[in-house]
Amino acid sequence: MIQKLISGIKKTDAPIVVGLDPKLSFIPERITSKAYAEFGETLEGAGEAIWQFNKEIVDAVYDLIPAVKPQIAMYEQFGIPGLVAFKRTVDYCHEKGLIVIGDIKRGDIGSTSESYAIGHLGSIQVGANTYSGFEEDFATVNPYLGSDGVKPFINVCNKEDKGIFVLVKTSNPSSGEFQDREIDGRPLYELVGEQVEKWGSESMEGDYSNVGAVVGATYPEMGKILRDIMPHAFILVPGYGAQGGKGKDLVHFFNKDGLGAIVNSSRGIIAAWQNENYSKFADGQVGEAARAAVLDMKKDISDALASK
Amino acid sequence: MIQKLISGIKKTDAPIVVGLDPKLSFIPERITSKAYAEFGETLEGAGEAIWQFNKEIVDAVYDLIPAVKPQIAMYEQFGIPGLVAFKRTVDYCHEKGLIVIGDIKRGDIGSTSESYAIGHLGSIQVGANTYSGFEEDFATVNPYLGSDGVKPFINVCNKEDKGIFVLVKTSNPSSGEFQDREIDGRPLYELVGEQVEKWGSESMEGDYSNVGAVVGATYPEMGKILRDIMPHAFILVPGYGAQGGKGKDLVHFFNKDGLGAIVNSSRGIIAAWQNENYSKFADGQVGEAARAAVLDMKKDISDALASK
Repeated sequence: MIQKLISGIKKTDAPIVVGLDPKLSFIPERITSKAYAEFGETLEGAGEAIWQFNKEIVDAVYDLIPAVKPQIAMYEQFGIPGLVAFKRTVDYCHEKGLIVIGDIKRGDIGSTSESYAIGHLGSIQVGANTYSGFEEDFATVNPYLGSDGVKPFINVCNKEDKGIFVLVKTSNPSSGEFQDREIDGRPLYELVGEQVEKWGSESMEGDYSNVGAVVGATYPEMGKILRDIMPHAFILVPGYGAQGGKGKDLVHFFNKDGLGAIVNSSRGIIAAWQNENYSKFADGQVGEAARAAVLDMKKDISDALASK
Repeated sequence: MIQKLISGIKKTDAPIVVGLDPKLSFIPERITSKAYAEFGETLEGAGEAIWQFNKEIVDAVYDLIPAVKPQIAMYEQFGIPGLVAFKRTVDYCHEKGLIVIGDIKRGDIGSTSESYAIGHLGSIQVGANTYSGFEEDFATVNPYLGSDGVKPFINVCNKEDKGIFVLVKTSNPSSGEFQDREIDGRPLYELVGEQVEKWGSESMEGDYSNVGAVVGATYPEMGKILRDIMPHAFILVPGYGAQGGKGKDLVHFFNKDGLGAIVNSSRGIIAAWQNENYSKFADGQVGEAARAAVLDMKKDISDALASK
């Protein structure tokens, strides 16, 4: 699966993933009012509004990018109807040829992690039939439970040609509280990074592994060190844009081959129509604003990489 | 919410939670065949079988225990129909007066953790209406992202009178890989335990906090230390039974007041009918076998506590 992602990045010349993390407050009234007219001011109405909003964004940007990253929490907060919108979004992105990174941050003891892996990346037998629950291409995984929480995901990846990104150094302000604590003179995130490289050796495809890492754009110096520790891991980089990361912060996340990282922006793209930089789209032109924001992000990153 | 759990424990005299972690292989043919006859060998059929199986167990044991702990991964692997079965189970357990601990192990950056907290413990506004997505009473939370991943859960707990159990030392064999690593001479799980006690001070109810901890029965010596580090935290103890923990391993998880811990058993109860110790129920008497297994577990734990 990592080679499929690399092909997509090369084809679009954009190491960019759009985070489909909708909030009701991002959705223009014309979309919500139509959804509520049909389904009421209900969870089903909210799910419909989210799905229609996502569809406008995907239709406007799918040819510019290789992948999307829906954050499942934004859907789960609306219960079952929210998760129906999540699944519709995943399926629609596949129809449009996009790779889907499920930002699910799951992780549990062995047999339970296996169930998460099956639900999101694999398939399950019911009687004589086989089904896939959510069918993303990649999933994010929390490493706190150690190898036997991560390896069931890798087993499913190897069986079904899928991939994962393991949380190493997260983009949030308090990520250092445990992740930066020193163990034998080195921060925990480096030890997790070493394990990612080791776990990844079980799932190589060419120069890269189907086991990648999450490292926040907000910590560029740590990204540089982790780039060296995990030479075969693709790094999924959140925190660009709304969280404060800029193009110049990203250069050290990439390898010398110009690959090795993919940068996520969520609010900066999907809520661009509400941003004063894109005020000409302020009448709720969600898709047009998102497209302009993706093109600006693409330029910001390629300029930064060119002057590396 | 923690006082409601304590009342339940006192009333039943059972610091026991039954883990509703169904697999299709635990479900007798009479249940699956009926579900498949109605819904086909589909994800809907699997969801129906799981729900009917859970109902038999809950009907047989609800008067003996204060709480259940459905592991959401076992439902999520069946996609949307599995999560519908999860929600039906949560709702039904509430009807029977049980407290529901959602074993969801979620955790993310601040605003995203808030969405998980809303979806599982809180409520969300849609237009003029307010809804709850899954409506558990407690949720398990992964601490790897630090305070700003955990505090949004605590805020929702304080607003809605709910609770959480933070993963401190998990029951699985490789939990030591990161959790046991020494930082300033002390293992990471102790530092996480100290934070649990600190976070918990923001949500006290009497002698205990709505912020509890998960510590595996498989690590009794660590449980003893963590009991001292977190005097106000209730400890949710997985790993009893099928994972190897025994009654005598549990005594140090309790405080001198006889409270402070609640022990989970999943497979040992819900699949008891398949266990040779309960072979008289081998014809698929799921409920009767589960009831016998709960009574045996209750005796094992109370004997161990009496001889402490």
